[in-house]
Amino acid sequence: MKKVLFLLLAFSLFSFKEKRPLNVVFFGDSITEYAVQPKGFITLIQQRLKDEHKDADYTVAGAGIGGDKIYDLYLRYENDVLTKKPDVVVIWVGVNDVWHKRLAGTGTDYVKFGRFYTALIKKFQAQNIKLVLCTPASVGEKTDYTNELDGDLNKYSQYIRDIAKEYNCGLVDFRALFHEYGLKNNPENKEKDILTKDGVHLNDEGNKYVADLMYKATIK
Amino acid sequence: MKKVLFLLLAFSLFSFKEKRPLNVVFFGDSITEYAVQPKGFITLIQQRLKDEHKDADYTVAGAGIGGDKIYDLYLRYENDVLTKKPDVVVIWVGVNDVWHKRLAGTGTDYVKFGRFYTALIKKFQAQNIKLVLCTPASVGEKTDYTNELDGDLNKYSQYIRDIAKEYNCGLVDFRALFHEYGLKNNPENKEKDILTKDGVHLNDEGNKYVADLMYKATIK
Amino acid sequence: MKKVLFLLLAFSLFSFKEKRPLNVVFFGDSITEYAVQPKGFITLIQQRLKDEHKDADYTVAGAGIGGDKIYDLYLRYENDVLTKKPDVVVIWVGVNDVWHKRLAGTGTDYVKFGRFYTALIKKFQAQNIKLVLCTPASVGEKTDYTNELDGDLNKYSQYIRDIAKEYNCGLVDFRALFHEYGLKNNPENKEKDILTKDGVHLNDEGNKYVADLMYKATIK
Amino acid sequence: MKKVLFLLLAFSLFSFKEKRPLNVVFFGDSITEYAVQPKGFITLIQQRLKDEHKDADYTVAGAGIGGDKIYDLYLRYENDVLTKKPDVVVIWVGVNDVWHKRLAGTGTDYVKFGRFYTALIKKFQAQNIKLVLCTPASVGEKTDYTNELDGDLNKYSQYIRDIAKEYNCGLVDFRALFHEYGLKNNPENKEKDILTKDGVHLNDEGNKYVADLMYKATIK
Repeated sequence: MKKVLFLLLAFSLFSFKEKRPLNVVFFGDSITEYAVQPKGFITLIQQRLKDEHKDADYTVAGAGIGGDKIYDLYLRYENDVLTKKPDVVVIWVGVNDVWHKRLAGTGTDYVKFGRFYTALIKKFQAQNIKLVLCTPASVGEKTDYTNELDGDLNKYSQYIRDIAKEYNCGLVDFRALFHEYGLKNNPENKEKDILTKDGVHLNDEGNKYVADLMYKATIK
Repeated sequence: MKKVLFLLLAFSLFSFKEKRPLNVVFFGDSITEYAVQPKGFITLIQQRLKDEHKDADYTVAGAGIGGDKIYDLYLRYENDVLTKKPDVVVIWVGVNDVWHKRLAGTGTDYVKFGRFYTALIKKFQAQNIKLVLCTPASVGEKTDYTNELDGDLNKYSQYIRDIAKEYNCGLVDFRALFHEYGLKNNPENKEKDILTKDGVHLNDEGNKYVADLMYKATIK
Repeated sequence: MKKVLFLLLAFSLFSFKEKRPLNVVFFGDSITEYAVQPKGFITLIQQRLKDEHKDADYTVAGAGIGGDKIYDLYLRYENDVLTKKPDVVVIWVGVNDVWHKRLAGTGTDYVKFGRFYTALIKKFQAQNIKLVLCTPASVGEKTDYTNELDGDLNKYSQYIRDIAKEYNCGLVDFRALFHEYGLKNNPENKEKDILTKDGVHLNDEGNKYVADLMYKATIK
Repeated sequence: MKKVLFLLLAFSLFSFKEKRPLNVVFFGDSITEYAVQPKGFITLIQQRLKDEHKDADYTVAGAGIGGDKIYDLYLRYENDVLTKKPDVVVIWVGVNDVWHKRLAGTGTDYVKFGRFYTALIKKFQAQNIKLVLCTPASVGEKTDYTNELDGDLNKYSQYIRDIAKEYNCGLVDFRALFHEYGLKNNPENKEKDILTKDGVHLNDEGNKYVADLMYKATIK
């Protein structure tokens, strides 16, 4: 009898431990900030987890703040991400690092972008957190590389691809994926209204597309 | 007798008129300014005119000033170009309009680039001057559109292609031609040293390549 | 009888010529564009001319377009100002030349600001038009020189003071006058709401203040 | 005898502890980086400590890197400053935060400047390190506030004065001190060659002046 009880207890403890859900945090700028809204991609992922009865296995949360650049993420990773005790962190940043050069004279030097990004990777990996890196999708959806910032976005995206490999991180290459999607679905070479509502921020279609890709990258 | 004399006179006047060489002026920024140096593309064109015994039929001259943007050309077209009484003007500008946004905060708005460019075209065409427009070739020679300013250069180049058609001007599409050339001759995706020495200004190979294209566009 | 008639006719012709009003055109950016609105400084000057029964002697008109820099004025002085056959032109420009460096990367180089300004002065003076130059008043009304662009605005203003003297033009030094006004009337060191509604564009008080100064500078 | 020995030992231990020199680290950008050169202000302070026989009581060291902005200091304060176990840290930063807006489109937003600066202060104060903050001295030495960046430098300097008070830090107000010095010693309103060699980096006179002020602020 005692043995059974012990086994039962052991089992329940074990299953309790097993049942602790895997904690995924999306860390980024306004695109991620908006993702927790009703039709945002984080909300869609939460929905799907319920639909597929995996919501006991995974929790997903957002930690996005509008206007953030890579160094802003570095400043707040402890308070806004580590405190959530994540198992997986998805980093999606870069649009403002490029865009704010033009917008306000306060973008991020290419070399310093790299310096802060690698520092951030190391801080997370020192906590045994798995990382998925994302390239910045678009500032303008034209597909012939005539969006003003295409060159710089391509340059920063290539950097992210390289360090994803170097630091053994996952990668969702939105820059390439959005371009491919546009080649198929944007025959009129429009600046927006394909996956975004303004060239940058996701519309409903964009949130669905991103939710699907993010799901595949983080949920098994 | 009188008639013969008259015919003779008429013929000589006519031939005198015929013999006035066609006057081609290259109007632009530092790339054009350097083109009159010993190995520059204007010098190479002059050489070739001699070699092909056409130097009595054509004169070519440069009117390039480093740092010039489209509005600088507009400011000085009277003093620096009209005074040369050109039959053909080749306009090659745009690099600084894009580049100086980043370099000094003093680039040219896209809309105003168009406004000044069309104003300049009209001023020349009002003088019955034939025009050849050129797209800005490159700021960085990488072929995968990861040069920082690729997007904006593509955008301004597309505008130039459009107005060349609209205003019935010739076009030398260096932006497209340099890209094609790079795809064949820049397998390592280098930033410079293909047709330029610094990503922008022509090296010897670049001057030869441009001289050949400019020759075809202006000399019959 | 005939003589009298002739004299009468002569007199009326003469007085007709005498009565041709002096034509003043205000040429500038959005500050001048807004000046023709009901409470704008051009409207206030027109009112005062009526009140003082001088509206037969003077006409005043605006030629302001929002966002204009010195080179935009140069592009449109013929169509927008010379066609109005002005006797006096008041040029008020410079805010955007400085501001757009930060706002959009498309401000005006200091050296080129001078080049276009002097070219514009010469074009007007070649038509025997009298000129009154104005320094840019403010981007931010704080009086301790902590408005972000104070240094650059001071620099460009000094240039305008110097060429006003060099080219024998009138000068309304709004930069100095607004600063003085602020020292007396802005004890809390506010950024706006003294003479402007946003640091740049005149509020009602500002329009009154400017109308008075402009009146003194152009009307005898 | 034993007791005496013990007392002697105790005393020597105590005095040994007392004799541990106070460790001062200068933390900043290129101005601080150059300060360890033969005629630099850190070298001059070291010299003076020797001359005044205080070199056993104080050690001073530099941790300056050219081009650094406030967030760069935040990235490297652990490796470059905390590892030196300082008692006092002198922070001198801000020039590049303002200047790089114009130079490269990569300056620091005013709000984020504040966010990083206060974060850095808190990190140091959590280690019981005493802080001395310095305002950015100059980008251009003209005394009539016509240096292009004067407004923005004044704005950021005012912020530094405010947080020095708020966080109970020492302050060396180079912005005000250089301006005062210039009013006395720069009657020709020169852009450089008073305390700097290029408007920003200290010349010999500047290093002496700064050494003296820094000495007074850190050495008793």
